[in-house]
Amino acid sequence: MNILKYPDRALWKDIVKRPKFDLSSLRQTVEKVLNDIREHGDQAILQYEERFDHVSLDSLAVSRDEMDEADGLVPSELKAALTLAHANIAKFHRSQKFHGERVETTDGVTCWQESVAIEKVGLYIPGGTAPLFSTVLMLATPANIAGCQDIVLCTPPEKTGKVNPAILAAAKISGVSKIFKIGGIQAIGAMAYGTESVPKVYKIFGPGNQYVMAAKQMVSLHDVAIDMPAGPSEVCVVADATSVPAYVAADLLSQAEHGIDSQVMLLCTDEKVLKEVEQELQTQLERLPRKDIARQALDNSNFVLTRDLDEAMELSNLYAPEHLILSIADWQNAARLVVNAGSVFLGHFACESAGDYASGTNHTLPTHGYAVAYSGVNLDSYTRKITFQHIDKQGVRAIGPAVVAMAEGEGLEAHAHAMRIRLNDLK
Amino acid sequence: MNILKYPDRALWKDIVKRPKFDLSSLRQTVEKVLNDIREHGDQAILQYEERFDHVSLDSLAVSRDEMDEADGLVPSELKAALTLAHANIAKFHRSQKFHGERVETTDGVTCWQESVAIEKVGLYIPGGTAPLFSTVLMLATPANIAGCQDIVLCTPPEKTGKVNPAILAAAKISGVSKIFKIGGIQAIGAMAYGTESVPKVYKIFGPGNQYVMAAKQMVSLHDVAIDMPAGPSEVCVVADATSVPAYVAADLLSQAEHGIDSQVMLLCTDEKVLKEVEQELQTQLERLPRKDIARQALDNSNFVLTRDLDEAMELSNLYAPEHLILSIADWQNAARLVVNAGSVFLGHFACESAGDYASGTNHTLPTHGYAVAYSGVNLDSYTRKITFQHIDKQGVRAIGPAVVAMAEGEGLEAHAHAMRIRLNDLK
Repeated sequence: MNILKYPDRALWKDIVKRPKFDLSSLRQTVEKVLNDIREHGDQAILQYEERFDHVSLDSLAVSRDEMDEADGLVPSELKAALTLAHANIAKFHRSQKFHGERVETTDGVTCWQESVAIEKVGLYIPGGTAPLFSTVLMLATPANIAGCQDIVLCTPPEKTGKVNPAILAAAKISGVSKIFKIGGIQAIGAMAYGTESVPKVYKIFGPGNQYVMAAKQMVSLHDVAIDMPAGPSEVCVVADATSVPAYVAADLLSQAEHGIDSQVMLLCTDEKVLKEVEQELQTQLERLPRKDIARQALDNSNFVLTRDLDEAMELSNLYAPEHLILSIADWQNAARLVVNAGSVFLGHFACESAGDYASGTNHTLPTHGYAVAYSGVNLDSYTRKITFQHIDKQGVRAIGPAVVAMAEGEGLEAHAHAMRIRLNDLK
Repeated sequence: MNILKYPDRALWKDIVKRPKFDLSSLRQTVEKVLNDIREHGDQAILQYEERFDHVSLDSLAVSRDEMDEADGLVPSELKAALTLAHANIAKFHRSQKFHGERVETTDGVTCWQESVAIEKVGLYIPGGTAPLFSTVLMLATPANIAGCQDIVLCTPPEKTGKVNPAILAAAKISGVSKIFKIGGIQAIGAMAYGTESVPKVYKIFGPGNQYVMAAKQMVSLHDVAIDMPAGPSEVCVVADATSVPAYVAADLLSQAEHGIDSQVMLLCTDEKVLKEVEQELQTQLERLPRKDIARQALDNSNFVLTRDLDEAMELSNLYAPEHLILSIADWQNAARLVVNAGSVFLGHFACESAGDYASGTNHTLPTHGYAVAYSGVNLDSYTRKITFQHIDKQGVRAIGPAVVAMAEGEGLEAHAHAMRIRLNDLK
């Protein structure tokens, strides 16, 4: 890691700089697969599943028998953990329900918003070394609470042609409607265009490798909405003299183990703690199964000694981290200074993995600095706010002349006329 | 227009079909201009302003003198209308402020959301035949209420090198921070990348021609968020035996005059009313300055006679119109059936132009069927919901074992360890 002691403000721009994350070189490959799916539907999917996931499938949909079988295969301890996590996620996202206010902006003019669920949503859960059943809970639970009618999930099958049982168990707990054994670009294409088996959805959620990200980006230009743009995962830990170095090191490592491109940053106001964190990192690193990955991620990370907490918070806001851990004594005041972050963890006991799994907050968050403009996934992500207005005769009298004047000013005579004809009838 | 009497459901898919709206053919042109702006900043902007807007500018920023001068040039009737409209827009958007709830999901685990304004936003206001000062109010007013610090506005200058005074007056009323005389692709590039004069922003809002749309799409892939994808404007009017044919015709025309690609649809449960609307259209059309545009838009429109109101609402939901006018007796019940729409106008007196200008609702809305997944611009569009969580010792005891079990199940040992180390300390 790079240790930076009280770096000059002129250097801050470089400290927060992320590595370039450009998916445009994948365009041709992704476009080809997407076009195939659009034109040939299920048949193309089956071929790509053979080529990319090395399985020959009879059916893309997961059957009820497979669901039941999976249920018996998940250890009871894990099933209990999924149930607890789901309850917390459900409780927090249920509290986000929108209750709009009716506002009479002028006598006779009443305006309001209604939150209406997106009818069809698609969730993508990657395969690979780790079965991300936690992401199933994070994406399907709020979809269900929002009231989405079709909650479609695609995930690549294992080489046996089956889906990891914990993914199926999480899907059952969180109320997924339909599950398909489809991975990668072909999954995104299937949900964006619809095929004989897979329903077309209106919005696609979920993580994935670079091909999946590029495919999501591409279908989002014309065919379907997506949750947010994506980049490598990241954490920023703010520490002070009260921080526990072993906790801080563990939190940094829990981010670093994700991948060699993971971003890890430490902002510390206390030089002694910073040094102890460094030492703890070496000790804890040795014990990790994924230590080679974590070490590479750490090599690229910045550990910054700041003059005070205000400076640390300012630098954190410039960085706009996906996860921000305020492992400090005065987290209450520091929390008020957060302007740019995805999700914030307060106090010495709020480790990122709590929020990754079971505290109730969502773990699908804006990376790569996108937190300056994007929220993480929340209940709103599954709904639209539709505006309604009722105007009566009194309302027409009140705002009619202004509407006519503005429409005339913009040279839109038919707009003016639509109001004038009503105004005249009331004379 | 095409009159369709009780069309078979098999035909509905064709009735709601929009014309293809594909911006990919503009990619090369747009990419070239954007790259120029990114590399050469203000100098490139000045050159493009000469080429595209035919003006030679000394300064890109609108000066205080120009603002003061404009103030004197706007007729007092229009200024009063702008003030009234702004007050209603402000009142409705202020009512949308978010007050999050703190939720203890488990003993010792407290989660909440805070709504935090996006620090820097950019607004694009097109030039052309009509000065869209109403869009200035619609985009800047909520930005201001949200608390955005930098509200940057770009709009092309007229051939005199000045900006239309009504646009400047609206910008002043609604609290824009900085105004620049820049149009088209170069304006989008300036706000996405920042130049010597123009600050980089985090999210760009506003309408524009195909080049502007394509530029917004392109910068949204890597550099900046945008309000929503765009297509031609559209209205769907639902009418019954109580509808006033002259009002319905006027509402349809107020959409049709926007452009030859405007989409206009009438769903009517009463054959007599439908015929009368047709006649009214011919009469009113003749009087319009923009009748040639409106006629072409109407030629492509569908007027559908439906069996009943339920069928009309079902077809409307399939269409997912930007504007939906329920000019019917029982608008209260019909409003509850709305699933897909941008903004809904209720009753015989709620004409679209009321919402376009002065009722208080926003007029920046999802077109082209995007209403199935996108909301119109509202206060949320200018903020992010950041999640916070505080966990104490009790919380660690309550969710710790579940977090460890799930992290182990996903093969993420460092995630498990970050929780385990805290759990062990509490033993």
